[in-house]
Amino acid sequence: MEDLKDYARQLGLEARRAARRLAVMQDSVKSEALRQIATSLRAEAEALLEANQRDVATAEAANLAAPLVERLRLTPRRIESMAEGVAQIASQIDPVGQTIQAYNRPNGLRVEKRRCPIGVVLFFYESRPNVTADAAALCIKSGNAVILRGGKEAMHSNTAIATIISRSIAAAGLPAASVQLVQTTDRALVPILLKQRDLIDLVIPRGGKSLIEAVVAESTIPVLKHFDGNCHLYVDQHIDGIEQQVIDVCVNAKTSYPGGAVCNAVEHILFHERAASRLLAKVCDALAARGVQIRADELARTLYPAAVPATSEDWTTEYLALIVGVKVVRSLEEAIQHINTFGSHHTDGILSTDRAACERFANEVDSSSVMINASTRFADGGEYGLGAELGISTDKLHARGPMGAADLTTYKWIVSGQGHVRG
Amino acid sequence: MEDLKDYARQLGLEARRAARRLAVMQDSVKSEALRQIATSLRAEAEALLEANQRDVATAEAANLAAPLVERLRLTPRRIESMAEGVAQIASQIDPVGQTIQAYNRPNGLRVEKRRCPIGVVLFFYESRPNVTADAAALCIKSGNAVILRGGKEAMHSNTAIATIISRSIAAAGLPAASVQLVQTTDRALVPILLKQRDLIDLVIPRGGKSLIEAVVAESTIPVLKHFDGNCHLYVDQHIDGIEQQVIDVCVNAKTSYPGGAVCNAVEHILFHERAASRLLAKVCDALAARGVQIRADELARTLYPAAVPATSEDWTTEYLALIVGVKVVRSLEEAIQHINTFGSHHTDGILSTDRAACERFANEVDSSSVMINASTRFADGGEYGLGAELGISTDKLHARGPMGAADLTTYKWIVSGQGHVRG
Repeated sequence: MEDLKDYARQLGLEARRAARRLAVMQDSVKSEALRQIATSLRAEAEALLEANQRDVATAEAANLAAPLVERLRLTPRRIESMAEGVAQIASQIDPVGQTIQAYNRPNGLRVEKRRCPIGVVLFFYESRPNVTADAAALCIKSGNAVILRGGKEAMHSNTAIATIISRSIAAAGLPAASVQLVQTTDRALVPILLKQRDLIDLVIPRGGKSLIEAVVAESTIPVLKHFDGNCHLYVDQHIDGIEQQVIDVCVNAKTSYPGGAVCNAVEHILFHERAASRLLAKVCDALAARGVQIRADELARTLYPAAVPATSEDWTTEYLALIVGVKVVRSLEEAIQHINTFGSHHTDGILSTDRAACERFANEVDSSSVMINASTRFADGGEYGLGAELGISTDKLHARGPMGAADLTTYKWIVSGQGHVRG
Repeated sequence: MEDLKDYARQLGLEARRAARRLAVMQDSVKSEALRQIATSLRAEAEALLEANQRDVATAEAANLAAPLVERLRLTPRRIESMAEGVAQIASQIDPVGQTIQAYNRPNGLRVEKRRCPIGVVLFFYESRPNVTADAAALCIKSGNAVILRGGKEAMHSNTAIATIISRSIAAAGLPAASVQLVQTTDRALVPILLKQRDLIDLVIPRGGKSLIEAVVAESTIPVLKHFDGNCHLYVDQHIDGIEQQVIDVCVNAKTSYPGGAVCNAVEHILFHERAASRLLAKVCDALAARGVQIRADELARTLYPAAVPATSEDWTTEYLALIVGVKVVRSLEEAIQHINTFGSHHTDGILSTDRAACERFANEVDSSSVMINASTRFADGGEYGLGAELGISTDKLHARGPMGAADLTTYKWIVSGQGHVRG
């Protein structure tokens, strides 16, 4: 226990020291480190695949569920896309030093809001090893030191990636402790880290609900939460000419990620009663043809009798599986009300040709991402042009939705005068 | 206890309902409510002064410290400035609906970040009654419902102001529960409120350190903290031609608020050794002439022997009184290091003619406000043009420094396609 306390303290102190230096690093240095990471990830893909194979073999031997093994797996394509993300972040404009706003006051004072790094980030994540590179790259770009704590199933993969990162940042001249991977899987370390408010500025847990709840309960440091995605699509009454699009978007939103096991997959589809009579059965047929189980309310079952009856529990459930809930509503208002009441405020979409309905839906649905005539699967940092994402915040404070490098900054007010005094 | 639980639940439920309606209110309606509040505050100044007199009399009878009685007191001028702040907020551009960023993606998707209200704010504050009007106005403008819990010493004043607010928002057609003043001084209500994460989105405690620490310890809702201001001024070696400005700014920063009892008053002045020999004694003389006690380190005392010797505890102390710590440093770096180590990251300033020194100080001092050749007393929402402030955040997440209406918003991503599906 004393050892763990010492280790936690050391992680925090080294991160704090590194953060002070990183905060004032030129972008050329930070970007060079990122380019080196991208190059090395590509050059050492073989070694990464080997390390990953050890994790995958252990997971399979332990009978880990198939979707979890899938998330854990690296492939040449996944390594390339990880390297590409890091390279993209390298070429972004440095968020640090950007002026958010600047203006002169009547008394001649000049007031500027200027972006600066937050400091030290503690990042928890689960099995996907590419997150190690994404998170390190976003933190370096934004001038923050990061302490990474990945899932123990991915320990060999994460260590291999972290080794490449360490070598690259040392070569570029960044402080070694800019990126630290926690070297123990002992869970007792977690509550100790979460109490170091003097050394850590922000905690981001990305993963299952129980991990996040545990972090929130223990932490005295501000936490940015990445909760579940109980996502909806609402099929409006105005769908003339977009019937096929509606079917395609519903199918894509549910099935484009293997097994539907991803937070931005659609979980429930609401049909306006006028759309239901025309399209509900066709959408359900298309989904069922892809192996999706349909759970429907009473009205929807009259139109698609093959559906399993939905219970009230269904509406709050994030299946993360090839299951979808289907319901008929009488109005746009009822759809908005349902989504705001039973949804998780992650990503919800409308399919409609009616401008006013789309605008009202966008304004009144209380979700981090609102999709208009597009698949919920686009809710993603890469798709939004952020290069990668640290996660998808379901919080309303600081950052909401997919988080990129700029979301890892705060700002300071810089006020310039000529000997101004206050009257 | 059951009564308190019911009351807490009722406050939260009514706020949530009001917030949903407020979020989509037109600005003309919100602004009309604010103009009515401003008009009524002016028209009913007599009644407000009377109610305030009851609070002041009780406080004086209870031998409350003079600066606290001073903060509690309303004057015709303070009422006018409260009304003026509300009117100014009314005329600001509505932050809700503002597009922060919008762009097209290569695949034709349009991505927009649009400001929207946070929802329900729970606001704790202490004795200054004008904060009731400031907070209500900022929350209404930004489309948030607010639950106000002021100090019990100001109960009569706050109730009188809240009555004016209720009447005005009803007349303008806003939901009555947009602004609710907590009607009990029972402290047992506080932890109950702080656990209602489903009904309250943000907690802002503004006041003493113990209040804030208690809120942070109890809350499962995100908290924006407003901690203490251990503010510094650094007098650089380059001060040719601005010697008198240096003296004036130091005196203003310490003494322009009665008794120095305000978070943006300077608490410690650091002199570069080359500036010290020329100016330290003059600055100390000017401060002493205004009744300020000087506490100095050893080097400073050789230049100003009348000073009280400072102890190591002094450097971390926010005096909130007519006391100032004075210290000689050997370099700009030492000043920055001292401020980042012993300060509270609130407001710190540099006095210098050297552009590079000012820029380096601004970049490296980790403070919410950095003053360049200006008094620390300018760190204030009104002075920054925000109309009023909800407080001065010492947090790095979400909002930092003085918080105005826009800081009470979050955003949503609105993504528009034409039947886009993800590949």
